Amino acid sequence: MKLKEGLVEEIASIVGRENCSTRVADLYTYGFDSSIHHHSPDVVVRPSSAEEVSRLMKLASREGIPVVPRGGGTGLCGAAVPIKGGMVMDLTRMNRIKEIRVNDLYCVAEAGVVYDRLNEALSPNKFFFPPTPGSGEACTIGGMVATNASGMRAVKYGATRDYVLGLEVVLADGSIIHVGTNTIKNSSGYQLERLFVGSEGTLGIITEVTLKIAPKPKKSAMVLAAFDRLEDAGKCVSNLISVPLIPSATELMDDICIRAVNKAVQAGLPDVQAICMIEVDGEPEIVAKELKVVESIARQSGASSVQVSDDSKQMAKWTSARKSVMSALSRLGDQLVSVSLADDMAVPISKIPDAVVAFHRIAEENQVIVGTYGHAADGNLHTKMLLDPCSEDSWRRGERAVGQIFDAVISLGGTVTGEHGVGISKAPYMMKERPDAWRTMMAIKKALDPQDILNPGKLMQWEGGIIRDLRYPCRDLR
Amino acid sequence: MKLKEGLVEEIASIVGRENCSTRVADLYTYGFDSSIHHHSPDVVVRPSSAEEVSRLMKLASREGIPVVPRGGGTGLCGAAVPIKGGMVMDLTRMNRIKEIRVNDLYCVAEAGVVYDRLNEALSPNKFFFPPTPGSGEACTIGGMVATNASGMRAVKYGATRDYVLGLEVVLADGSIIHVGTNTIKNSSGYQLERLFVGSEGTLGIITEVTLKIAPKPKKSAMVLAAFDRLEDAGKCVSNLISVPLIPSATELMDDICIRAVNKAVQAGLPDVQAICMIEVDGEPEIVAKELKVVESIARQSGASSVQVSDDSKQMAKWTSARKSVMSALSRLGDQLVSVSLADDMAVPISKIPDAVVAFHRIAEENQVIVGTYGHAADGNLHTKMLLDPCSEDSWRRGERAVGQIFDAVISLGGTVTGEHGVGISKAPYMMKERPDAWRTMMAIKKALDPQDILNPGKLMQWEGGIIRDLRYPCRDLR
Repeated sequence: MKLKEGLVEEIASIVGRENCSTRVADLYTYGFDSSIHHHSPDVVVRPSSAEEVSRLMKLASREGIPVVPRGGGTGLCGAAVPIKGGMVMDLTRMNRIKEIRVNDLYCVAEAGVVYDRLNEALSPNKFFFPPTPGSGEACTIGGMVATNASGMRAVKYGATRDYVLGLEVVLADGSIIHVGTNTIKNSSGYQLERLFVGSEGTLGIITEVTLKIAPKPKKSAMVLAAFDRLEDAGKCVSNLISVPLIPSATELMDDICIRAVNKAVQAGLPDVQAICMIEVDGEPEIVAKELKVVESIARQSGASSVQVSDDSKQMAKWTSARKSVMSALSRLGDQLVSVSLADDMAVPISKIPDAVVAFHRIAEENQVIVGTYGHAADGNLHTKMLLDPCSEDSWRRGERAVGQIFDAVISLGGTVTGEHGVGISKAPYMMKERPDAWRTMMAIKKALDPQDILNPGKLMQWEGGIIRDLRYPCRDLR
Repeated sequence: MKLKEGLVEEIASIVGRENCSTRVADLYTYGFDSSIHHHSPDVVVRPSSAEEVSRLMKLASREGIPVVPRGGGTGLCGAAVPIKGGMVMDLTRMNRIKEIRVNDLYCVAEAGVVYDRLNEALSPNKFFFPPTPGSGEACTIGGMVATNASGMRAVKYGATRDYVLGLEVVLADGSIIHVGTNTIKNSSGYQLERLFVGSEGTLGIITEVTLKIAPKPKKSAMVLAAFDRLEDAGKCVSNLISVPLIPSATELMDDICIRAVNKAVQAGLPDVQAICMIEVDGEPEIVAKELKVVESIARQSGASSVQVSDDSKQMAKWTSARKSVMSALSRLGDQLVSVSLADDMAVPISKIPDAVVAFHRIAEENQVIVGTYGHAADGNLHTKMLLDPCSEDSWRRGERAVGQIFDAVISLGGTVTGEHGVGISKAPYMMKERPDAWRTMMAIKKALDPQDILNPGKLMQWEGGIIRDLRYPCRDLR
């Protein structure tokens, strides 16, 4: 779309000239998030307050301009890509931590506060905001709420949704509303604060978040268990949970991921079919007790080797090896890049082995390389597909494999996205997963955004396949 | 309203003659929940499946009949009272626990399963569903979801909303939808499962619930701390939390409640201005460690006496004294009954002392007796007002005090309902608490129930005062 004459000046008068851009380089850059998708907006704005967001939304609704809110741009499925052009609203200037009220068990942060910054501020008070997304150094609290982000600690500590007490939201018509409360409990009408969680900017612009905080565990320790059979790694997780012992993290990696990180970053991980990095945390005496249980359950479940450590350097080394999987996979084959398509499925925990076996079969059938890793104890699995970006045939095989992976996940009683969100990549699959519920979602969308200006084309409305008609830079550069 | 001829026969053909009644005694009985409100329905039905609920909703929507879903009838604010007549749908026949999947950390229960029954079934697996409502012996899982119920363990374990993974819901038009997932994580579209939490039957009929479950703590122990100054009891709670130490329960009782239970059930509680029953739970060595911290913090905060116990009989005695507050208050004065009006406000935890002081002032100003107790560590306070049911003047003073209590709570940054819901009693106050958000609630209500047949007249739509035009039996019997 093309913006009406004079509109950019009007926008600039709201946010200041320096916080409004139509430069081609800016538009191109803001056309990306961390997914494979791209589409340039018509204008980029960087508001500094809910009032500015409100004035921008009033303008957008008057003119029928699409608005796409954006945090750190770390999303992996295109939720922040302005697929219908219009205005990208970069919220990172709204980065104030407004309150830390330890006695009241909550803090208040503007949407653009970076996850790690918030935890640095909470740390001296011995508290933290637990979800631990992989992109914590860059992702924002607003983005985490918009996608219900979580990470490796969700099995013990829950996801973002479990911490949202209240929100300030700017609606499509520019009105500013406050949903939820500053209290730990609330039964006061519809829990709109939880409805906005995971709504990916399609129902309103989240400008401020009130979050419950939790006491920081005093100590943590890890077990690295190696398995010659992937199924045994899955059984180990199930066995732990039925003790019951809820680890603070359980990171699974298959042989492809192990090979990739050993090659790319010399991680020195055991050369086996699967490893599990199991973390326990809490009071020191409990950590010591639980470590013994984990070690024994891992051996009983068929681990061929078990290493235990509470040394912070060793644990950081293991964690860093795990964190490097995504980039390491791109360095496994010369012509291949790792793409995020079927990137964060979740299944009931006991179905993890079935899921990974299915992914391997699908990879083989479609002759693509698929690396699988994830947060096994909460049923959340990541796959990265290695594709040749210059080969149409490679993309086609990849697309087919993605569809089959989602079908497998749905047939195992799972969901197509556990922690990244739907965005563009997963819209058709979300609707397949929820054949009887998406119409209710659509009814709510229409009630709150009748003009469809809030992040249009995401979650449900998007028609067509995954990659078709979307520009992947390598494809343009051929 | 009067039902159209032949309609009762049609209803009976869906649920069976024996599960459909228009007997005056049944209609009168089903006109109550545990609040002061009453209005008889036109027909009572007891469906046994989502399919029957669906057929009933199709009929109701065709005929424009109000439908009020009902669980255990333990609600304290009239949410299950059919204020506009129509059909009361008693869901207690739907009482099957359908799945307990410990390895997957969830269970599936029909809406009519009683809270305590579910926990009895989970117990042999060493798991539980933690919210612990006071009415656990009778309230149903469906009702707990519909009101976001919780209880004394919410500060450590969260409320019902934090455990709802998925729901089966019958919408106004009779369609059956499945929202949420069977997985611990889910970012797959709008979190409708959390929107239906607290919706009090106004958006759909909840027929089945998938709940996350948690490992049962191995041990618990209690500290009973007595305070000569109520403010010190409040400070004790704040001081505990900033250690940080999150107790599993912290039950506060003021002098009026202490006097009432000592008189009614000879509880033998210390005759002071406030007591706190502080429970800690978990691994035995941690319980022992935390008990010492609690004891020391209580003394530092000004406790005049501190008793500690991990003896199950002693703890049951204390818990039972606390549980008897509600009924004991009715026996404090001859002519007075305890009524639930301002019954479950919540404030930020550190505002507990301010709130209780304000309640005492308001009671004095209006010459009513108000007993205050509650779950101090999560900021949730109960007041019970002692009124003479035969005195118009007593009711009027009570009404005025209720309004002032809610105003005080809102001005302290709190909410008018922490765990019981809005129903009839709190509708005008909820709208006062959320001046900029209730229109968004209304938009969602209209989108999902355009005919306004699902529990009409609750949450928002209700006009007028609290008690006026609602029959309280004693008033009729004068």
